[in-house]
Order: sequence, then C-alpha cells, then structure tokens
Amino acid sequence: MKRLTIAEATELAIAKMRRHGVDQAEAEIAAPIYLEGELAQRPSHGLRHLRNNLEQFRLGADRRTPLQILNETPVSALVDGGFHHAYFVNHTAMELVIKKAGISGLAMVAVRKSGGSGILSYYTRTIAEAGFIGLVLANAPATVVPTGGLEPLISTNPISVGIPRRKGGPILLDMATSAGTFNQILQAQVSGKPLAEGVALGPDGQITTDPHAALNEHGRPRLLPLAGYKGFGLGLVIELLTAAGSGGSLGRQEGYVHSPDFFHALFIAYRPDLFVSLDEFNDRVDQFVSDLYTIPAVPGSGGPRLPGDETNRKRAETLERGYIDLEDATYEFLLN
Amino acid sequence: MKRLTIAEATELAIAKMRRHGVDQAEAEIAAPIYLEGELAQRPSHGLRHLRNNLEQFRLGADRRTPLQILNETPVSALVDGGFHHAYFVNHTAMELVIKKAGISGLAMVAVRKSGGSGILSYYTRTIAEAGFIGLVLANAPATVVPTGGLEPLISTNPISVGIPRRKGGPILLDMATSAGTFNQILQAQVSGKPLAEGVALGPDGQITTDPHAALNEHGRPRLLPLAGYKGFGLGLVIELLTAAGSGGSLGRQEGYVHSPDFFHALFIAYRPDLFVSLDEFNDRVDQFVSDLYTIPAVPGSGGPRLPGDETNRKRAETLERGYIDLEDATYEFLLN
Repeated sequence: MKRLTIAEATELAIAKMRRHGVDQAEAEIAAPIYLEGELAQRPSHGLRHLRNNLEQFRLGADRRTPLQILNETPVSALVDGGFHHAYFVNHTAMELVIKKAGISGLAMVAVRKSGGSGILSYYTRTIAEAGFIGLVLANAPATVVPTGGLEPLISTNPISVGIPRRKGGPILLDMATSAGTFNQILQAQVSGKPLAEGVALGPDGQITTDPHAALNEHGRPRLLPLAGYKGFGLGLVIELLTAAGSGGSLGRQEGYVHSPDFFHALFIAYRPDLFVSLDEFNDRVDQFVSDLYTIPAVPGSGGPRLPGDETNRKRAETLERGYIDLEDATYEFLLN
Repeated sequence: MKRLTIAEATELAIAKMRRHGVDQAEAEIAAPIYLEGELAQRPSHGLRHLRNNLEQFRLGADRRTPLQILNETPVSALVDGGFHHAYFVNHTAMELVIKKAGISGLAMVAVRKSGGSGILSYYTRTIAEAGFIGLVLANAPATVVPTGGLEPLISTNPISVGIPRRKGGPILLDMATSAGTFNQILQAQVSGKPLAEGVALGPDGQITTDPHAALNEHGRPRLLPLAGYKGFGLGLVIELLTAAGSGGSLGRQEGYVHSPDFFHALFIAYRPDLFVSLDEFNDRVDQFVSDLYTIPAVPGSGGPRLPGDETNRKRAETLERGYIDLEDATYEFLLN
C-alpha cells in the first residue's frame, strides 16, 4: 500500500493520462471520477480503472473526432464522445442533463463512442447535489449470459439512482444487474481461491466456482444475471435503453473486451419538485428515512440501512483525513 | 372454471363495478385492464383484483373528489386521482404521458390518491404500441422488509418497461422487486402447502416456509426483497420516486392493507428516436433480438427468451380463441 494525499493521487492520475495522450482539460475532469472509488474506499472502482480506460482510449485513437452534441432538444441530447476519454465524455453528458433539467424540469442525455463510465454514483451524487433526482444506466461489452443461455450477451449493466436529501448526503443506489463481476473472476484466478457460488456458468451450463471454467474460449466470462430471469430482464432493458437508444453497438460479441464501441450510458435528471413542492418532497423523504431506522433489526444483522449511507460515511471519513491508501500495483502503474 | 367470451367477461366486470358505484365511463376504461391478466393467462393479475380494488374504492368514498391534473408542465403532471377507480386514474396518467411525450419527446406523470394500478404491462404495452418507450413504477402498502429489518417498510414495488419493436409485439419487462408476493402467502395459507424458500421472514428474522409465520400481528407479510440488498435498494428508490415524488403516503404502516392512500405510480414515456433515427433504433433492437436467439441453450433449459415473448404469445392465443377460463370464486364474485 502507498499512502498519498488526495491532491497527490489526483496529480499522479492526471500526469498518467497526459502521458497517454489525454488532453489536460479532459484529464482534470476525469481524475476526480477515478478518485471517487478511492474516497469511498472501494479500490475496485477507483484508480485501478485507469488501466482499462487508457486501453479503451488507445483503441479509439484512430477514430478520434471532436466530441459532438447531436439531435438536441430542450429535454434531450446525444453525446457522441468521438472516442475521447470516457469519463470526460460521461461528465459532459452529466453536466448537460443537469443544465437541461434545470430549464425544462426533466431531461435525458445518451452517450456513445466513449468507453467505460466508471463509478456511476459519482454522477448520481453530483446530480443529486445539484438538487435533482438522477438516474444513470450504463452498459459495457458482453459478459453476462441470458437466462437459459451459454454465451454472454449483455453486460453487468448497472443502474444508479441519486435522491437529494436535506442533510446527510444523497440517497445513492449503485448496483450491477449481474450476480457477480468480471473483476471477481479475474481476482479469483490470481488468488487461486474459488468463485462464490452462483456467480458464473461453466461451459456445460452448470454453475461453476472454478474461475478458469467461467471464461469462454475468447476469455469472456459467463456471468449470471442477478436473481435469474428478473435480473436478466432488467439488464436487457438497460442494454437496449443505453446501446440501442444511442445507436451504439450491442448484442453478441466475441474476442477482446476493451473495445470502446461497446460502452454506452443514459443520464436522466429531473426536479424533485416536478409534482409537489420541494418542502413536501423533502418531508416525505425525511420521514421515510426516519421510519427506516425505527424498523427492528434482524438479530445479528446490524439492522436496516439506507443505500449510500456507508459510501457517504466512508467518503466523508477519507476527505476528512485527507489521504488514500493505494494498492501497490495501481501505484506502480500510475508512475509509469 | 367458467368459460366466458372476452366480451361477456368485460360486461360482467363493468356491471360489477357499476353496482359498487363506479361511473360507467370509468368502469369501461378499467375493465380491459382487469382483462389483461386473463388474456395473458395470469389469473393472479386478472379479474380477481376487482375484489381488492373495489375495497380500495369503497375506502376512498368519503374523500372522493374530481380527478385533478396538477402542476402541469410541458413534460410533466401530477394526477391526483381523488380516490376514483384506480385503473381509471392510472389510465388517465398513461394517456397524459403519451400525449406529452408526443409533443415534447419525453414526459413523466405521477399518480396519487388512486389505489392499485393493476398489471403494469397493460400500460407499458399500450405506451409501446403508441410508439414510445414506456417505464412504469408503482408502489402499494408496505409488505416487504428492508434488508436487516423485521417489519415491512416498502411494497413489492414493481417496475415495468415496454420497448417497441417493428414486429412481434413490444419487449415487455414486468417484475416485482420482492422475492415473492403477498398473494403467494395467502395462497399457501389456503392450500396448506409450504411457502417457497427465501420468500418471507418469520418473527425471529429467519426465513420461514410457514405462511402463517410470515405475517405479523397486523396481518402484514414480511416479504423479502429480491436478491437481498440490491433488490431492497431498487424497491426503496421506486418507493421514493413514486410515493415521495407524488406527495403520497409512504413508510412504516400498521394495520389494514387496503387503504388507497398507499398506492402511487410514476409513468415515463419517451420517443425511441430521441437520440437516433427510428430506423436506426429499430435496427439495433432487431439485431439484439436476433442475437439473443443465436445463443446456445443451457442443456434442458429451453434456451434464452425475450421478456414479454411468452405474454405476447399467450395474449395473442387468448384473443384468437376469443374466450377465457375464469376461476369459479372470481366468477361468483363478479355475479354478486
């Protein structure tokens, strides 16, 4: 582990991106999104993602064009990222959806030709902190099998929702619609430990705990959807709303998983006082949260908690102490 | 079982509603929504719901006021149902969201003071058949425990998505965010059969298969969220977007479960060509669907299928043959 101040880690990330050809302005926008996972003490969603995103950035180099805002209406726009740095593209979409929701009350912005959007709760937190309800859907290359199927068709297709509150930080949901992640398989391969039960299928269509058996001949995982058919249905509609909606690439894919063509996102924001006054909305949310904490706990469980509470707490703690502890491999990668 | 033509069943449902004080126009709008479950050969979502909805309608009688459309903007409105027939109120919201999406490209309509919305895929199917992408979220009285909690806080909070296709009927997702339903518990009580594993908690916070142990002292179930914490998070945001968003009642509740105060919904519709041309959108959806059916099947599984396909098929089959087979108890209820 390497201990770095937040400012140091941010500078290292920017310098690394610059050496790989990312513009200064784009790198400055992207760095805090990499840091978000570190602040939340979720290194799996932090600076280690630079490796994948810079690879996607490299693969888009020959087709790089200026970022374009297409088909704009008062309530919508398509951001064609032109294979610029993915977080810069997604950040642009986020800013645009906030601006449009501020004028029209409700807006939707789609993203294509970017790359991985990173930790979605960065965007939903920012939308909620700007005073809006935020929903972000994202997809990525195919790694998840359809229920009843033997090859990956959709991605872990996450959904994130941010709901503003008067105090205590926004309510933040950020969940994959798959039972596990590609990263869990890769980590199990490295550690030699078995996979959790119910995360992936082997080539015979049976659940496997062998991380090697969980990959097909192209190195693609056969991750299972969350909770069977329902999770697949949810992932499938996210795939269609993001990829088909933005005119992007989707469906069955073989081979290398880093192509930036297979990443898309949909940003939605609306005013919480679209239907009732802001006071009334806030009162209801506060009452619900206070009700949640009056529910008696299942013995030994720690009791109910609000989505985002732990993230908000860890994030505040990291900001307060001012430093992060970075994995050695990620630190080395940042330096080179 | 009683065999009825669709026209006969519709007339019986209308006559029943009329005898309970529902206006002719409202009953005519509501009847096809009750029929939708029967057409899809899902009697649990069909005419048997009349019993609950008429009870909710009765409980709203003293507070009944004209349906009002409040806080209207080009992209949004709140439908205050004034405790009119729930399906009429939700149908009004659906028509309004389609109309607004037709003008602005994207719209959102919230519903309060109604009662149960019924089978959500009726609405998302209609929105999709009108040429829009539809999302409907709904909530109801508290029947689902938060993860780690011993008392119900949210409802089974379903989500439905309808995506238009060139042919073959829309893609239709319609899923609860809970592991099971109140109805499953009630049916297990009647049949004397045990509950499925993982559906509900007993008073000690352990999973129970005893349908009597799954109810608290107020007769409220302790249903589990779908897939643990993720399903709870999803259900929680649906609770807040529908109930808090519309200024409705939510949170911890005790006692009788039919109060119409605890039902809310959110209707979202947008043009599939908001970001790219309709041809491009349809091409991507068609390609994805065709890719889905090229995925090799898990042995013995029947292979992957598209959400809504089975419903579309059964619905077409019922319409083709022209009759439904109604449960005796529901038939008797309709007559009286």
